[in-house]
Amino acid sequence: MADLPASIEIHEEGPREGFQIEPGPIATADKVRLIEALAETGLKRIQVCSFVNPRVVPGWADADDVVAQMKPKDGVSYTALWFNEKGLDRALAAADKLTLYGSISLTASEAFTRRNLNRSHAEQVEASRRQTALHIARGVPVKRVGVMAAFGCNYQGDVSREQVIATLQDGFGVAAEAGVEIERISLSDTMGWATPPRVEALVGEVRAKWPDKRITLHLHDTRGLAVANAYAGLKMGVDFFDSTVGGLGGCPFAGQKGAAGNISTEELVLLCHEIGVETGVDLDALIEVGRMAEAIVGHTLPSELIHAGSLDALRGSA
Amino acid sequence: MADLPASIEIHEEGPREGFQIEPGPIATADKVRLIEALAETGLKRIQVCSFVNPRVVPGWADADDVVAQMKPKDGVSYTALWFNEKGLDRALAAADKLTLYGSISLTASEAFTRRNLNRSHAEQVEASRRQTALHIARGVPVKRVGVMAAFGCNYQGDVSREQVIATLQDGFGVAAEAGVEIERISLSDTMGWATPPRVEALVGEVRAKWPDKRITLHLHDTRGLAVANAYAGLKMGVDFFDSTVGGLGGCPFAGQKGAAGNISTEELVLLCHEIGVETGVDLDALIEVGRMAEAIVGHTLPSELIHAGSLDALRGSA
Repeated sequence: MADLPASIEIHEEGPREGFQIEPGPIATADKVRLIEALAETGLKRIQVCSFVNPRVVPGWADADDVVAQMKPKDGVSYTALWFNEKGLDRALAAADKLTLYGSISLTASEAFTRRNLNRSHAEQVEASRRQTALHIARGVPVKRVGVMAAFGCNYQGDVSREQVIATLQDGFGVAAEAGVEIERISLSDTMGWATPPRVEALVGEVRAKWPDKRITLHLHDTRGLAVANAYAGLKMGVDFFDSTVGGLGGCPFAGQKGAAGNISTEELVLLCHEIGVETGVDLDALIEVGRMAEAIVGHTLPSELIHAGSLDALRGSA
Repeated sequence: MADLPASIEIHEEGPREGFQIEPGPIATADKVRLIEALAETGLKRIQVCSFVNPRVVPGWADADDVVAQMKPKDGVSYTALWFNEKGLDRALAAADKLTLYGSISLTASEAFTRRNLNRSHAEQVEASRRQTALHIARGVPVKRVGVMAAFGCNYQGDVSREQVIATLQDGFGVAAEAGVEIERISLSDTMGWATPPRVEALVGEVRAKWPDKRITLHLHDTRGLAVANAYAGLKMGVDFFDSTVGGLGGCPFAGQKGAAGNISTEELVLLCHEIGVETGVDLDALIEVGRMAEAIVGHTLPSELIHAGSLDALRGSA
């Protein structure tokens, strides 16, 4: 285990992912309460909302209100998501509380790009060019190239490493044309196709090609393999993970409603702590926030750990 | 991945584990229907019931009826559990349909032995001597030494490898006194304390000490790490796993009701197939049986995969 990182950074996406997919309605005050509780657990990066069209995503009609009402905690970065100029302008209007950075976000599966965005891959690359230019014009740094469906796709099937590398090259091409310096590469298992050997192989190949970029894994637990995949990433030295408290999020592309979403933050944190990787997170506090999230959405969340409790709590009482 | 086995054997324990813990009542016909459907998926070993005191485990009051009503499939072994002479005699009465073998079952944590069985470890070793003598007297082969709480215990905390080795030595001592030849060592993560490094370390140490015994892992997904732990075992060459369809089973020792139970058979099978390890199981058929199990118990089961569907089904349609 020589390659385990000493510590990892976590981008907590529970509020944004969760309240986007929940049938709701969920009170703005509950969203704020969850965000503020997450900030008390030691998490340092929290994605708090999505500035999207409320007709498309009614769960985020109150994005501006959530940011207005939340009390930021010192030392915590609050991020947000947007897809177009209107969304960016809403984010900029809240820039006193948010840490804004742009991504060049592409998809390794053209079938998914067509289905999800109604565009060809070439059109999506072109859209990324325009969005990058917009970010530069607005003074928002562009730091990340992300690839969705990097391990497989419900509409295409398996996705080869060559497809992922080619997609990343397209993203880096957009960055180079725009003259921006990319810091991070994000590999997303959008529909739950990753396995430990696929993670090892893809991370290895991406790192060999871009050795100076930091790799982020965005894992989904759609088929129960997310923690095993995270462990494979950790053993490859990956030190940046997206996750959601309680496993908030779901998967709109799965066979049945109620399918699991992102890897749960508390299971990721438990794994890290048990193998000696620091997260800066108070796991027992986080488990309590997972239970709060479950109470807010009003149904059982996929995280097993919030139902079982931590090991440290039992060590203490044993 | 040189040490991955070419194939694994699975002991499907869903009926026994699931119907023992479900609040029920569940109709005998439904139990039989689930067992018969499992036998059609390619699973070769199915634990169908527990012959226990119906006052203690009302869910298995109909164990004898389940075995009487089920139609065995050629090539499939049906196993059962019992804890005392009365239970063994009920199992022997159904021996035309069941494959009976005895275990020497001890616990690495004395705190758990006291809590679960109201006995000291020494008393439990003595009870195993009597049970082994009983098995020999009734002509039931004793093939297995099992250790519960082999990775940790909610009442003791961490369990050291030394404790597990010492417990196994006690078990082998009972076997040697009785003159029985043990084939398998079962390591149970009864309360969900295992992590991949702990699995690697314990399997390595047990194998070094008993190189000619086959190791079985009985993993629980109490805190979401079961699939990662199974992968760690597979990479160590472990080729025998207990599991339950849908993740049936729950954990009576967890912090909350509704905590996850055993590793789900379909997630174990998906992992194996995706990394090139054969199981002999038709995964899509098994997922359908997982959904049947969910319908029978009337609530969501922990397996994520039964809600998402398999990858092969999507590869076929992509």
